[in-house]
Amino acid sequence: MRVRLDELAKRLGGEVAGDGSVEITGVGGIREARPGQITFLANPKYEVYLPETGASAVILGGDHPDIAKPALRCANPYVAFLKAVKLFSADHVEVAGGIHPSAVIGAGVSLGAGASIGPHVVIGDAAVLGDGVVLMAGVYVGARTRIGRGTFVYPNAVIREEVAIGERVLIHAGAVIGDDGFGFAKDGKCYLKIPQVGNVVIEDDVEIGANTTIDRATTGTTRIGRGTRIDNLVQVAHNVVIGQNCIICAQVGISGSTEVCDNVTLAGQAGLVGHIRIGENVMVGAQSGVTKSIPPDTQVSGYPAQPHGVARRIYASLKTLPELARTVKDLLSRVERLESPAKKEE
Amino acid sequence: MRVRLDELAKRLGGEVAGDGSVEITGVGGIREARPGQITFLANPKYEVYLPETGASAVILGGDHPDIAKPALRCANPYVAFLKAVKLFSADHVEVAGGIHPSAVIGAGVSLGAGASIGPHVVIGDAAVLGDGVVLMAGVYVGARTRIGRGTFVYPNAVIREEVAIGERVLIHAGAVIGDDGFGFAKDGKCYLKIPQVGNVVIEDDVEIGANTTIDRATTGTTRIGRGTRIDNLVQVAHNVVIGQNCIICAQVGISGSTEVCDNVTLAGQAGLVGHIRIGENVMVGAQSGVTKSIPPDTQVSGYPAQPHGVARRIYASLKTLPELARTVKDLLSRVERLESPAKKEE
Amino acid sequence: MRVRLDELAKRLGGEVAGDGSVEITGVGGIREARPGQITFLANPKYEVYLPETGASAVILGGDHPDIAKPALRCANPYVAFLKAVKLFSADHVEVAGGIHPSAVIGAGVSLGAGASIGPHVVIGDAAVLGDGVVLMAGVYVGARTRIGRGTFVYPNAVIREEVAIGERVLIHAGAVIGDDGFGFAKDGKCYLKIPQVGNVVIEDDVEIGANTTIDRATTGTTRIGRGTRIDNLVQVAHNVVIGQNCIICAQVGISGSTEVCDNVTLAGQAGLVGHIRIGENVMVGAQSGVTKSIPPDTQVSGYPAQPHGVARRIYASLKTLPELARTVKDLLSRVERLESPAKKEE
Repeated sequence: MRVRLDELAKRLGGEVAGDGSVEITGVGGIREARPGQITFLANPKYEVYLPETGASAVILGGDHPDIAKPALRCANPYVAFLKAVKLFSADHVEVAGGIHPSAVIGAGVSLGAGASIGPHVVIGDAAVLGDGVVLMAGVYVGARTRIGRGTFVYPNAVIREEVAIGERVLIHAGAVIGDDGFGFAKDGKCYLKIPQVGNVVIEDDVEIGANTTIDRATTGTTRIGRGTRIDNLVQVAHNVVIGQNCIICAQVGISGSTEVCDNVTLAGQAGLVGHIRIGENVMVGAQSGVTKSIPPDTQVSGYPAQPHGVARRIYASLKTLPELARTVKDLLSRVERLESPAKKEE
Repeated sequence: MRVRLDELAKRLGGEVAGDGSVEITGVGGIREARPGQITFLANPKYEVYLPETGASAVILGGDHPDIAKPALRCANPYVAFLKAVKLFSADHVEVAGGIHPSAVIGAGVSLGAGASIGPHVVIGDAAVLGDGVVLMAGVYVGARTRIGRGTFVYPNAVIREEVAIGERVLIHAGAVIGDDGFGFAKDGKCYLKIPQVGNVVIEDDVEIGANTTIDRATTGTTRIGRGTRIDNLVQVAHNVVIGQNCIICAQVGISGSTEVCDNVTLAGQAGLVGHIRIGENVMVGAQSGVTKSIPPDTQVSGYPAQPHGVARRIYASLKTLPELARTVKDLLSRVERLESPAKKEE
Repeated sequence: MRVRLDELAKRLGGEVAGDGSVEITGVGGIREARPGQITFLANPKYEVYLPETGASAVILGGDHPDIAKPALRCANPYVAFLKAVKLFSADHVEVAGGIHPSAVIGAGVSLGAGASIGPHVVIGDAAVLGDGVVLMAGVYVGARTRIGRGTFVYPNAVIREEVAIGERVLIHAGAVIGDDGFGFAKDGKCYLKIPQVGNVVIEDDVEIGANTTIDRATTGTTRIGRGTRIDNLVQVAHNVVIGQNCIICAQVGISGSTEVCDNVTLAGQAGLVGHIRIGENVMVGAQSGVTKSIPPDTQVSGYPAQPHGVARRIYASLKTLPELARTVKDLLSRVERLESPAKKEE
């Protein structure tokens, strides 16, 4: 691809300073960029590389002094650069387009314009796929499931029946969406399965990691809010509700009916018990065990999870615990010694 | 479906009180149920909704006083209601029945009556499948594996060779059963693979969660006992033996050769080291790290796992640890002050 | 298979003592072996079973006294026995060989001699597979991915585009290699996906467990070193570099850009934060939370991970913490009592 800087400014947002007719053919870091490429400057410590960069143009913050080279000025140079990376990356996952003859498509399935259905895909009856949906090889989509336009599903992922998936969702390989929740009623010593007849709703612009599992609700809905990003090997149990723009890192587990509000970050391997509420903007540290509801705008960590400052002090003291125990033992004998003459005096 | 109450009583177990000819067409909670539906009363706090329920009949405990509406009396109303839910749920996973033409079936495979083999399924040579077995799309069954009647395998699950699976087992999407155990012998700096030539036995009425992995034994058998329920993303290592009616929650890891006895509950993300024995009726708390054998009828939690009462006291004291450290520091200087005049007196 | 002992010695390494013409048809433990089988003696406590073993030959250490039966002497009898087990195991995963007609193979794919491509496999354009590569049913290999000779991929594993896999690698069922790393830039409240345009390199003789996920790098390479063994359900994030001959147990999580040097062992469910370095020969205990770089030749455990001896003392003291708190409370009142007469004296 080859695009003039002034054209690029329209696509990325921002304004040109200098010669807008320079042609850009790719992207590069400030130290590696070659003529023809555009680079960016976001972190002031990279300023020193600016005079010698080989790039033909630079993305700068709005308040950066003018430079000799053509520049594209915008509010967030890093974000603009990421958009440029995407624009210039030949999409490395090629999609053949059309319906592969080995795909098996049920009765009454509705396929949007430009949908791409890969080899060995199976789509159940009455499923509805929007425009430009991509199902790569070996994907399974259950009956009556709806997938919004522009959603991309990587190989061998499984989306069961009656799930609703929004637009521009990314579902990575091996993810399972809509499997049964884990619910049983005790009948003597046996466990009787509670039918899991609810569904899963994944809102627009969500990303679901490889081999992650999202259970369908017992009744009602397990919901993942718009713009939330979920990493690999995460477990989301039945009737969990996750808000918008959350970051859920790898191997996190969220137990049944727990609510995670907007803009929450759950770091890797954290675990949440069921039936609690994690307030907006909460950050949960890696490997934390969250055993009760967390108010908004709080950082917690440790097991059981505490406000982060408290947890940090606890874990700092923990290192001195063996010494503390020795000190207390020593104090005990010293106090006994102090007491014995006192007792004699009585 | 439309069934008379007296007919329903025969199917669910229990006795009719009142008009057994009333026709039931579905189920509903006591507050939502409409005419034609049956509801249930198990928890006394829902008693208040009984007079105004729209349901045509109510499932009651045996000792509940008579009510105006037709009733079905039984020992466990909730369990009977769950059976009714199942009965009236149009099975939402439709199964086409028969063998899909894209399935690849090995030499000498034995298929029971009414088996349903989905698209792109692969079955290895000499596998034996009982009556009514369902393999959904993309399932792989290895050579000489045996699957009992009524077992249901969701899409893209993998069951390797020479595994034995009982009757009415549910295996969720993406689960892997019978992959190699993780065993190596050190040969200088390298690890030489120890051949994993044992198998896996899954007994009747077991449920295996999505993307869960159950390793085959090095030699002998990795075994999951009858009625045990395993959630998603669980790791069961080689030569583990799990008893009957256990509950293994999501992301639990059980290391090699550990024995889990009957009626054990392992909560989410718990980890068990290898070569230990977890006694009957043990409950292991979420995220616990179990480092040694646990006697029967015990609750443990924490890292390393302690009897639950002990762990609770430890974690409660933990919160006060920084303060405790300050108090000890203060005591130390006070004792030193107390000692110094005492020393003078000597 | 039937092979003379002197032939076997050439294949396993080692020297024959006694009659090299005896024919060996299989392997067995020292107590179970029958005539025709070879057994081994590595652990002196099994010496007592040597006189009565039914085996026709015994693998012994080089310095073991001569025995009545034919023997194969070598430096490491257990390792030689494992090689014999492998030799005599009829490979229990049969591989049909050739290309199954249901496989879908892209344009310009290069297949080595003797490659075996199972049913419903999909191979992207311009992929290169070495001699004897086995792709079992339902495996997906992306465009331009290279797989070295003798590598074996179990069913339904997914290897995305532009991944490089070495020789004799084992990839278990459901593993996902080369899925997108988890990287986002904040744009207001939203997260903008950072394109993940790097790759994954898996060196020779690596093993990757079932349902394990290995992310492709943001730019550059996520690398797994030669001879490293990874268990099931492990998460390896983008730009992680793992050295040679490491053991990574089940459910471990390694965050982005962390470097794990040679000969490291990470026990089950351990978690490593990003951007740290784990030195050579480090051992990380089960469920540990590693929050900073670890120098070589160290054992660490606990949360946050400490040198193992320190952690052990901490967790031992932890059990006595509630008692310690009571003792301190008691000391406090005793010191107060001691101080009050002292104060009076002032």
